[in-house]
Amino acid sequence: MDSNSLSTRLSMETLHGSLTDPAISSMNLLNELIDEYPVAISMAAGRPYEEFFDIRLVHSYIDAYCAHLRHDRKLDEASVTRTIFQYGTTKGVIADLVARNLAEDENIDAAPESVVVTVGAQEAMFLVLRTLRADERDVLLAPAPTYVGLTGAALLTDTPVWPVRSTENGIDPDDLVLHLKRADEQGRRIRACYVTPNFANPTGTSMDLPARHRLLEVAEANDILLLEDNAYGLFGSERLPSLKSLDRSGNVVYIGSFAKTGMPGARVGYAVADQQVPEGGLLADQLSKLKGMLTVNTSPIAQAVIAGKLLLNDFSLTKANAREIAIYQRNLRLTLAELTRRLGGCRGVGWNTPTGGFFVTVTVPFVVDDELLAHAARDHGVLFTPMHHFYGGKGGFNQLRLSISLLTPELIEEGVSRLAALITARL
Amino acid sequence: MDSNSLSTRLSMETLHGSLTDPAISSMNLLNELIDEYPVAISMAAGRPYEEFFDIRLVHSYIDAYCAHLRHDRKLDEASVTRTIFQYGTTKGVIADLVARNLAEDENIDAAPESVVVTVGAQEAMFLVLRTLRADERDVLLAPAPTYVGLTGAALLTDTPVWPVRSTENGIDPDDLVLHLKRADEQGRRIRACYVTPNFANPTGTSMDLPARHRLLEVAEANDILLLEDNAYGLFGSERLPSLKSLDRSGNVVYIGSFAKTGMPGARVGYAVADQQVPEGGLLADQLSKLKGMLTVNTSPIAQAVIAGKLLLNDFSLTKANAREIAIYQRNLRLTLAELTRRLGGCRGVGWNTPTGGFFVTVTVPFVVDDELLAHAARDHGVLFTPMHHFYGGKGGFNQLRLSISLLTPELIEEGVSRLAALITARL
Repeated sequence: MDSNSLSTRLSMETLHGSLTDPAISSMNLLNELIDEYPVAISMAAGRPYEEFFDIRLVHSYIDAYCAHLRHDRKLDEASVTRTIFQYGTTKGVIADLVARNLAEDENIDAAPESVVVTVGAQEAMFLVLRTLRADERDVLLAPAPTYVGLTGAALLTDTPVWPVRSTENGIDPDDLVLHLKRADEQGRRIRACYVTPNFANPTGTSMDLPARHRLLEVAEANDILLLEDNAYGLFGSERLPSLKSLDRSGNVVYIGSFAKTGMPGARVGYAVADQQVPEGGLLADQLSKLKGMLTVNTSPIAQAVIAGKLLLNDFSLTKANAREIAIYQRNLRLTLAELTRRLGGCRGVGWNTPTGGFFVTVTVPFVVDDELLAHAARDHGVLFTPMHHFYGGKGGFNQLRLSISLLTPELIEEGVSRLAALITARL
Repeated sequence: MDSNSLSTRLSMETLHGSLTDPAISSMNLLNELIDEYPVAISMAAGRPYEEFFDIRLVHSYIDAYCAHLRHDRKLDEASVTRTIFQYGTTKGVIADLVARNLAEDENIDAAPESVVVTVGAQEAMFLVLRTLRADERDVLLAPAPTYVGLTGAALLTDTPVWPVRSTENGIDPDDLVLHLKRADEQGRRIRACYVTPNFANPTGTSMDLPARHRLLEVAEANDILLLEDNAYGLFGSERLPSLKSLDRSGNVVYIGSFAKTGMPGARVGYAVADQQVPEGGLLADQLSKLKGMLTVNTSPIAQAVIAGKLLLNDFSLTKANAREIAIYQRNLRLTLAELTRRLGGCRGVGWNTPTGGFFVTVTVPFVVDDELLAHAARDHGVLFTPMHHFYGGKGGFNQLRLSISLLTPELIEEGVSRLAALITARL
């Protein structure tokens, strides 16, 4: 009977494979390692800037949304209260306000019924992949390296991810087409290609305008969905149009996040999925059916907080984030300048030069693994993210990701100085 | 090329099977049908009573949680604000307060590290099933009829659910053992058995104390997990101990909901999973890893609302819900009395007599399908839920579910009167 004991029945090999996947377990180990060194300067965490957080804002956002329900939507007090307290519609109670924000900030014309408000962009990614992944033939394409949340959603849905070659100008459309051919030959179905055209996590790179048009042409010619993740688009020195705003053929599903532009603690994101499903309405309706089985609906209180921030800023998160955008820009310029000052001319050391977002990629002529990170934390008092974590452990062993979003100028100067000491000692 | 067009690639048969599963599509049709008749008296919706909803409570709950962070946890203002605004720990920022509530209301001794705070009980069910479902051998047991949310979570994880015979005293332990044998013979693995010992949705039935002990004995003898869902336990004339509080062998994973006892709009629930996973810590740690890939963390703002309600009520939701409990009890007694008054003695018509919860099951000597419901809505102005929806369309065709939670005495009297008119016309 012992081989049947409960704890044997709960051994790791009997549990879902995602729990022991190297990509996820390595990311968990990384986070534990980082937590061990709270006093080190962290250029690892991709969290938004905190200086302007203020509890009173939460109250005023909720009040602003309630006032909107009373005055713009003409709801009586019982209906206002019910909207906040009770179960809400699965697609979300603020889908119309999200659509107005998309029109204002992104020039995206989204019908409210094509919007599904989700528990962060993470749930939106899961819902899209779960909807599209029907059987073992189904495959997702994504750049390598890629956002770890995308890897996680793919693991949860047992969706294999084929890595597409990626350059400083985003995903390589020729390599994408090669993968489509390979899938055809193997009887596999490419369900979508995940892309982050603006300041991608982890690399910080963006696609230029011709690359965006080219990718859309390839998607249209091959009838393939693009999943556009745009968590960092607001944080640039110049704004390029999103794929969704350029899309004329309906190939783009847009994944939105309010974590960086609204408030991480609200955990509100969304998908815009206006594709027609034959005899199934909009793709958004299918996502919504799955959401009903996953989280029922996104907390209306959390939605009210985001709605209030939109309402108090004329639906413009660009406006709402004016101070933060200036700080991220300053931090990015300073980080790049400090890298030049401390490491310019060092043989084999380089970095890319993003014009926005939270991240910079540094390349070094030695292996960057978790052992090096532990050494950096312990002996140099600085934290970063080894890039191999974003390759599922299959690449990026000479690169690291620096995050600039949470730091002051002083901490950036000191952090880069410590990083430079670590690097130059190994050259 | 047309057969490869995007819309062909999005046809329903290419999408995940859950989207066309009869159980889910029928439930969607049901909800649409109910939405068509907003003026009918709804004995269909299982939503909590609304009279005491008040927006000011949301503000005071958030303030109470912030005060707790300042005074009990000794956090400085920046840390308080960060707790609310920023990403939080995956397991939840209020796990310790949930544990205190479980000690207070349920006599359950839960270590905070065994608690995972989730986006409603629905996410908790998904996480447990996703963790336990590794391959096609894995099977879940559940009573028939069963909660539609459990069916949904099973569909999303491709987990087959084998129905276990269920009586007025809950799940039949002998039938459970037969299923375990059958699974062994077929090379299948029973990963867990889902149970709702208190006032189950949809039937309203409860297990008596000997049945609880017997189920725990069977679970221990067969090394099987029980997933205990206790969304309605507080709403009874007498309180029986939960399986989790009686469990001495570690066989029970407890699924908690604050939707009925806290506030639906917070969308906060939790799992207590204190089982040891060899080389994997607690089962809660594995659930948490998956949650990180699904929703990252539950909104700290939503958690703050629930925490505040707990803090302002000495951690007792029994105390916080004293008025609601009295109303649900009154409504239940009145519904049963009105059924007796209007339908007592009618040949072939009967109902069960729950002592708590939101639901009563009515049995009639004719078929209760969605066509009858449409007729009831249109011609009699009353809504109920045909029970077959909770059998995945495979049973219950002579039963309907009445929900009593949202109504006034006047509406119950009128609703039962209209239902009786519908029923007696068909006898």
